[in-house]
Amino acid sequence: MRYSKLFGKTVKQAPSEAGNISTKLLYQGGFIRESTAGRYFMLPLGQKVQQKIIGIVKEEMDKAGAQEMLAPVLHPIELWQETNRTNTAGFELTTVTDRRKAQFALGGTAEEMFVDVVRKFQLSYKDLPINLYQFSNKFRDELRARGGLLRVREFIMKDAYSFHESEADFKKEYAKMRETYLKIFARCGLKTVVVESDNGYIGGEYCHEFVVEAESGESKFLMNEDGSYAAHEDVAKFDRYIDSALEDHKERQDVLGKGIIGVADLAKFLSIPVEKTTKTILFEADNGQVVAAAINGIYDINETKLKNILHTTTLKLASPEVVRQVTGAEVGYAGILNLPKSVKVVMDISLEHRTNFECGANKTDYHSININFGRDLPLPEKFYDIGLAKDGYPHQGQKLVAKKGIEVGNIFQLGFHYSKLMKRANFINTEGQEKPFYMGCYGIGLCRSLATIVEVSADNFGILWPEAVAPYQVHLVGLDLKDEDIKKKVENVYKTLLEKGIDVLFDDREEVSAGAKFADADLIGIPHRLVVSKRSGEMVEYKKRGEKESRNLQLTELISSLAI
Amino acid sequence: MRYSKLFGKTVKQAPSEAGNISTKLLYQGGFIRESTAGRYFMLPLGQKVQQKIIGIVKEEMDKAGAQEMLAPVLHPIELWQETNRTNTAGFELTTVTDRRKAQFALGGTAEEMFVDVVRKFQLSYKDLPINLYQFSNKFRDELRARGGLLRVREFIMKDAYSFHESEADFKKEYAKMRETYLKIFARCGLKTVVVESDNGYIGGEYCHEFVVEAESGESKFLMNEDGSYAAHEDVAKFDRYIDSALEDHKERQDVLGKGIIGVADLAKFLSIPVEKTTKTILFEADNGQVVAAAINGIYDINETKLKNILHTTTLKLASPEVVRQVTGAEVGYAGILNLPKSVKVVMDISLEHRTNFECGANKTDYHSININFGRDLPLPEKFYDIGLAKDGYPHQGQKLVAKKGIEVGNIFQLGFHYSKLMKRANFINTEGQEKPFYMGCYGIGLCRSLATIVEVSADNFGILWPEAVAPYQVHLVGLDLKDEDIKKKVENVYKTLLEKGIDVLFDDREEVSAGAKFADADLIGIPHRLVVSKRSGEMVEYKKRGEKESRNLQLTELISSLAI
Repeated sequence: MRYSKLFGKTVKQAPSEAGNISTKLLYQGGFIRESTAGRYFMLPLGQKVQQKIIGIVKEEMDKAGAQEMLAPVLHPIELWQETNRTNTAGFELTTVTDRRKAQFALGGTAEEMFVDVVRKFQLSYKDLPINLYQFSNKFRDELRARGGLLRVREFIMKDAYSFHESEADFKKEYAKMRETYLKIFARCGLKTVVVESDNGYIGGEYCHEFVVEAESGESKFLMNEDGSYAAHEDVAKFDRYIDSALEDHKERQDVLGKGIIGVADLAKFLSIPVEKTTKTILFEADNGQVVAAAINGIYDINETKLKNILHTTTLKLASPEVVRQVTGAEVGYAGILNLPKSVKVVMDISLEHRTNFECGANKTDYHSININFGRDLPLPEKFYDIGLAKDGYPHQGQKLVAKKGIEVGNIFQLGFHYSKLMKRANFINTEGQEKPFYMGCYGIGLCRSLATIVEVSADNFGILWPEAVAPYQVHLVGLDLKDEDIKKKVENVYKTLLEKGIDVLFDDREEVSAGAKFADADLIGIPHRLVVSKRSGEMVEYKKRGEKESRNLQLTELISSLAI
Repeated sequence: MRYSKLFGKTVKQAPSEAGNISTKLLYQGGFIRESTAGRYFMLPLGQKVQQKIIGIVKEEMDKAGAQEMLAPVLHPIELWQETNRTNTAGFELTTVTDRRKAQFALGGTAEEMFVDVVRKFQLSYKDLPINLYQFSNKFRDELRARGGLLRVREFIMKDAYSFHESEADFKKEYAKMRETYLKIFARCGLKTVVVESDNGYIGGEYCHEFVVEAESGESKFLMNEDGSYAAHEDVAKFDRYIDSALEDHKERQDVLGKGIIGVADLAKFLSIPVEKTTKTILFEADNGQVVAAAINGIYDINETKLKNILHTTTLKLASPEVVRQVTGAEVGYAGILNLPKSVKVVMDISLEHRTNFECGANKTDYHSININFGRDLPLPEKFYDIGLAKDGYPHQGQKLVAKKGIEVGNIFQLGFHYSKLMKRANFINTEGQEKPFYMGCYGIGLCRSLATIVEVSADNFGILWPEAVAPYQVHLVGLDLKDEDIKKKVENVYKTLLEKGIDVLFDDREEVSAGAKFADADLIGIPHRLVVSKRSGEMVEYKKRGEKESRNLQLTELISSLAI
């Protein structure tokens, strides 16, 4: 490709709203342009990279036995109604009405569509397992488009859906997809951490994000120091503080302590260790159910964990009126003592094995101390994990380290969720009975992967594309082009490279300075730069992107070293 | 691919609404399924074919110097308003409103989007020409989805837009695209006729459809017998009948002839040759302008030609009230005599060089005969071509032959239409001035191309895929699979073929009869069928799809004959 004819040349400045480094460099380098907020054009250079990533994803998915197909972009709304996803999809759904008044969803994912096409066939156990995938446009009606290419409103996603006769069979596919994803991202030059994550309303432990560590990322996760464990903040486990000194039960006291906010101040005021305090927070769930969640005062409550325990899709702090009504006290003095039966109490495992602890007295301005299970309140049937893990917390004999990263892919257990909500989503088992499919799903966002590569592979001068996803292999720079001999020589080099099947971007501009051409080459970030000029003589000057030194090489030598 | 695991197996019956042969066979063969009317899933087999076609299109477009990119699917409605296309696009536009109340068009084409991205760069003549293309979802809100895959509401289109500094430069690109399209379709096994077609509101003579002759097609066109001329019915030219015997002017007469309908009856009644009669039809154009279109009675009026002459996007028959008002007569007696000045008269070239002809008297129940230009009405400044060409009409010394076909691609002159309607759609010319781009556009509908291949390449048993677009190269059928030796042998053949890089569909089903497997192979239509069975011994049985005879071959022989 002659750079003089390439659509999408470099520019000096990215717009200030570009935000992160990837969007800025991809804009400046001529890979992308914004259409409207959160919707991007892939310019020829960007599209080449995107297609290389697609090629890698396709190759690895095919190797793993998945089958590519393609569903319509407009999903009949009836399917989304069948699974109650019109309001609860977890992302904002855009709908379209055609002129016959048929309504469609612009899908953010396509579970319903794939279940719908599969149920059009009467599959048997012999046809299973199947894993169907597509590359297709996905839509997210984000309220704010932040983070440039990292969070967009429209993008190409590789989404895959697998259908199984059993959970055991699904688990094999899940393991295979995990390996496949690791290969895909490694080939794209991305080092991913496989992070346990929240499976929301589906439940189950088979849910992982593939996260690339990056300061610009929105995914917060925690890892064991040795990397043996990684989990999203929403689900990360940690070891609770255990009060080793179990004491004899002291006499319960309700202490007047008006307006004392925060467990540290409270502990000080009450002259107790902060580990003796308890945080009780009142919430309202989906159907107005009031929930009291309690945890050792040194911890915070993880609302995602709490939501999943309650099987609720929404959870909001209880209003002061509700607090007053159920505790009989003003906000700030709620505890787990003497709550009405209508309140569901969820206690964190950090409340187990405690003696003489503090909690809100459910009496305005009062705090109760020396509370004990069995005497002051009944021991609950079960303690739950509703704690929010934080940097430095102990876990499995190590310390958790908090990290930030960009989620480039995810794999999910869907179980029977969709196949039970949708009619006839069944296969015939070995006994001839109709049984619902056991399902999984597997997503990769193409343009986020592309941007992430840039986030982690750039320097002050521009992008450093990994070989496998670079828009071109070689960036050939012609200098001194007004000299007919040099011009002839560089044109010959261009021709020779093309003949050898090497993908070349050839900067053939006559009126541009050497400095500007080198800056463009660095910005665009193609791995191998060749220069033909008066100085290079019979040789070509070679520099690898990211290295300082260039050296003169014979073209033949170079071609064989490019291993083509 | 093992057929036992392929998603999308054959079925005996297609639904009755499948309609044409391609949709029926693609349904039965397991290539497609309908989601909702006019929106199809591409199943794995169908997607493989679609991708092969995409591969061919991409290769040829790249060879021609076009650059692939990708625009968002949701087009900001403001762009469509800029070109007044929200109502006049020629296809029904679907719009979407997001939750911030931003409105988008689901584009049927993307001229505005490409002009918009190009104008984000300040291009100069040095950057031109550029031809940008994409493969992307297109939407047509057709009132009725007819013709299965031949007319759908959602499909992938390769659309390309070229930008030039001059009309002369555009013409070079147009010629190149014409050649490129011929290559593309030939590689897909489609014999296309390049048919002049209507460029609608754009005007200009550079507008062609690539049409595959087929009875099921909706494109009506006319060809010279020797193929030297082909034009869509909307624009086809023909040679008019010329009255060789120009007579002296006879006396004009208004003849009472109530309720005589049709030129043949009228000619008989008036005892004149039918060639002396005139058809005058009154229309109303965009702004209510009343138009009287007149043509020799032996011809019919072509409304598309008339629309283009009038630069109107709508044209409807004038209501009886309007007819009465402007002619002073009831419907059926309208002519071109004494019309008020407010009526625009458009006369076909078949009215030139006539004497003593008939036309409606503009008087209820009366017909005027022996009408002559100069005496009874003024000779118009210009006669126009508003005639509808028909089978058998003379043209360039030959006869026109009427044909039907399927439009699989088209190439258009856009000229300055979009670049003048859209702000700043300019480049800097050699004198440093801003000038609007001269543009062209070039489309190929992927799924229609796919269906058309089947329309023209099928027999009573199924599809016959051309080699270049077949979902697999080889259909390997294993028979007698309960015999361990045979099973081992066929598995070895499968492995060997895969190792040689041959794309194989392997029918490995144990419980299916030979007859059913052969029927499936014929239906699916992969070009080369191999059978391994007890009968084939050390050889493999080879049959080419469409041929009757099979023969036994050594596998090695076969592999080399497949020319891999």
